[in-house]
Amino acid sequence: MDAAQAAALIPAGSTLGMSGFTGSGHPKRVPQALAARIEAEHAAGRPFKVNVWTGASTAPELDGALAKVGGMGQRLPFQSDPICRDRINAGEIDYVDIHLSHVAQQAWFGFLGPLDVAVIEVLGILPDGRLIPSAAVGNNKTWLDIAEHVILEVNTLPPAELEGMHDIYYGTAIPPRRKPIHLEHATERIGEPYLRVDPAKVIAVVPTHHADRSTAFAKPDQDSRAIAAHIIDFLSHEVKKGRLPRNMLPLQSGVGNVANAVLAGLLDGPFEDLLGFSEVLQDGMLELIRTGKMRAASATAISLSGEALREFTENIAFYRERIVLRSQQISNHPELVRRLGVIAMNAMIEADIYGNINSTHIMGSAMMNGIGGSGDFARNGYLSFFVTPSTAKGGAISCIVPMVSHVDHTEHDTQIIVTEQGLADLRGLAPRQRAQVIIDRCAHPDWRPLLQDYFDRARSSGAQHTPHRLAEALSWHQRFLDTGSMRP
Amino acid sequence: MDAAQAAALIPAGSTLGMSGFTGSGHPKRVPQALAARIEAEHAAGRPFKVNVWTGASTAPELDGALAKVGGMGQRLPFQSDPICRDRINAGEIDYVDIHLSHVAQQAWFGFLGPLDVAVIEVLGILPDGRLIPSAAVGNNKTWLDIAEHVILEVNTLPPAELEGMHDIYYGTAIPPRRKPIHLEHATERIGEPYLRVDPAKVIAVVPTHHADRSTAFAKPDQDSRAIAAHIIDFLSHEVKKGRLPRNMLPLQSGVGNVANAVLAGLLDGPFEDLLGFSEVLQDGMLELIRTGKMRAASATAISLSGEALREFTENIAFYRERIVLRSQQISNHPELVRRLGVIAMNAMIEADIYGNINSTHIMGSAMMNGIGGSGDFARNGYLSFFVTPSTAKGGAISCIVPMVSHVDHTEHDTQIIVTEQGLADLRGLAPRQRAQVIIDRCAHPDWRPLLQDYFDRARSSGAQHTPHRLAEALSWHQRFLDTGSMRP
Repeated sequence: MDAAQAAALIPAGSTLGMSGFTGSGHPKRVPQALAARIEAEHAAGRPFKVNVWTGASTAPELDGALAKVGGMGQRLPFQSDPICRDRINAGEIDYVDIHLSHVAQQAWFGFLGPLDVAVIEVLGILPDGRLIPSAAVGNNKTWLDIAEHVILEVNTLPPAELEGMHDIYYGTAIPPRRKPIHLEHATERIGEPYLRVDPAKVIAVVPTHHADRSTAFAKPDQDSRAIAAHIIDFLSHEVKKGRLPRNMLPLQSGVGNVANAVLAGLLDGPFEDLLGFSEVLQDGMLELIRTGKMRAASATAISLSGEALREFTENIAFYRERIVLRSQQISNHPELVRRLGVIAMNAMIEADIYGNINSTHIMGSAMMNGIGGSGDFARNGYLSFFVTPSTAKGGAISCIVPMVSHVDHTEHDTQIIVTEQGLADLRGLAPRQRAQVIIDRCAHPDWRPLLQDYFDRARSSGAQHTPHRLAEALSWHQRFLDTGSMRP
Repeated sequence: MDAAQAAALIPAGSTLGMSGFTGSGHPKRVPQALAARIEAEHAAGRPFKVNVWTGASTAPELDGALAKVGGMGQRLPFQSDPICRDRINAGEIDYVDIHLSHVAQQAWFGFLGPLDVAVIEVLGILPDGRLIPSAAVGNNKTWLDIAEHVILEVNTLPPAELEGMHDIYYGTAIPPRRKPIHLEHATERIGEPYLRVDPAKVIAVVPTHHADRSTAFAKPDQDSRAIAAHIIDFLSHEVKKGRLPRNMLPLQSGVGNVANAVLAGLLDGPFEDLLGFSEVLQDGMLELIRTGKMRAASATAISLSGEALREFTENIAFYRERIVLRSQQISNHPELVRRLGVIAMNAMIEADIYGNINSTHIMGSAMMNGIGGSGDFARNGYLSFFVTPSTAKGGAISCIVPMVSHVDHTEHDTQIIVTEQGLADLRGLAPRQRAQVIIDRCAHPDWRPLLQDYFDRARSSGAQHTPHRLAEALSWHQRFLDTGSMRP
């Protein structure tokens, strides 16, 4: 049926489990048709909202369209849409920011309430009813399993050769019936290439022929290249010390320009025969595979720029042998991230001098995107890097602050902080030692004296495990809110 | 040899891996002899410090003795000794507060530097050189594996029947050679009852005949009983809703009076055939086993009051069939905590209205004890409770605050907050929703209007995802530092 007919099957107040992860594999037409219906209902004076669960961020035709018409009640997990973000920060959407590895299980446990309708993009339906997954697996397995009804969007645009690239693990269970997950190598296959669905639940099949959101990356700038160089130096040093194998351990890289630039930096690095075990496969990792630097990669989604997508599509026979796409509860699973010893590299908004990390909030209150999988990887990885340029907003913001305005990763989970200025290796350091290293290595020279001054004065009185001056700890952020600059 | 001779084998500046977890199984004589030697060296004007790694907290004859003489450089992980705490907060000891499940692996990876000497209490040495572990396994396996030299204290006081209660897993490895851990039931055995050591590394064997620290528990007071009742109500409700099996899932309980009281509350609760999967087995869990409410329990240490220890010793044949003692990297392993679906119950110092948890710091700067295993269990458990009375210091402190002064568990990891006032179920709630539930259910009535006022004013301007007034967010703590009360 067409998208409008399918959207008409969704009652007001429904909770929807949608496909989609980082602009890939989201349904393209039903959410827009639903947004149109919601707009009409609102115009007629009838309230109409839905709760939207996804894999992670989607695209304008899903998050943007539903947020724009005021049709979104609850939203989880990670999002990055500008309109959706505005509505969240206006207090109009209840945004629940959950670790990506926790979403599927919490839904399955029944902790999030019932899931009414799954709206899932697939690339085809086999004669026996199994589904060919799209370029993003995300939480699709779980949404299909637990939803009362299912709407499928069958997208005929993506290359047919995606079929077979997926590895959907059906060995998951709810405690006390859980078993070990027998995955011992990053790109090992432990599942099957298709998604299952009970045909009796399928209430609509909608044909589409639409491209995923193309994610353009900024060319790595000087800061990004400096960050990448610090990380490569560090990794080389760890190999020399015998703390890392010569071909590293599987790499995870977060979403965005800086993370992408770090991977680009590895192109010219000394490491060969790399592996990826990440949530998203972006341009940087594709390029590592293309050049043979990376042997193979596991992810839950492929999210490429237009140019990289062309390269991927033209040489898909090459890539399908080297890429495995999994459910996000597997790509981000603590058990696997720890076992494999993943090297985690994630961007952040700010770090404080004690190594607490803010990945999500601007000045304490405004949501940027969400925690995504950064906690899954940072907590459980072998090594964990958090990276950011040392300043933002043309120097008005220091990304190293006395105290972060929101904590997403605690001092207990932070190992290495990197800015274009340098790298702070915090392993085995007490808070006071960490502070001095972070100030010396990571802070921008314009801000270093101010941070040192704060730290010195905090050390002059009060308890000395984590010296702070509480009345002043968040004053930099308040000053930014008041004046547009953290500068005194 | 005697303890003084053994202590003489420890060079200044050494890093020592000591046994000991929550006052159990720590070496009793060598640390004291070392403290005496350090004192003499200091008196002679010679600097002498050692770094001390343990399982968790120990006792006056270890942490207390070494801290008192100013002999401790670095200390990790969890500690709870009053003298040691004072030295940490005076800035004299570099205290590194690591998740308990991370300690052994970080040491093995080489991230913490070389381990010079392991000082391990055992209950006996077999003819083939294998060691009978004490009442606490902690990190002993790893310390024995990686230390250059080993000093053994052989304690003949504890009951011989402890032999065979342990399950030491030797299947651990460093990435990329890690395998799944084949433990599917809380009290399953996957290892062997003895510790291994290379005899060539053993430089001293010291006989002792000393009791572990006896941990007295306060009788559950009214607040603790109220907290326990809220939790039991909640668990009963979850069973009714089909979200928990009738016999629950394996229980973890943190250290201390309140956690102990919650377990005591289960004695009169409706649940039978319980299992424990915890780090410490304290009086409350022993009593559950004694009465048959709990079928069996897994832990890394037994830490009992004098009275409970007598009960345990007199009926050890009964308990040894029902208790398994493991390495703490297994008792706290994310892979296992998540697989088993552990129900985690941990005490905290304070929570904020958005569900961020402070488990470690007093007023932002002073270390109390440490994070212990609370993060291992809270992040990976099926359900996670954080509990505290709603006020402290005779009402001068509200344990629910606008913003916590230190974050150990982020909003992403917090599910349920409980005080004697009530229980806040935060699952699936956005920050603004969480705040209202926490204020309504958990705050003390004396503090509720002040919290509501803060929240209302924060909602009146600025970004509305996590409404805050940063200039005021930590003012309650500052006021306590200034006046001895958070009260305006």
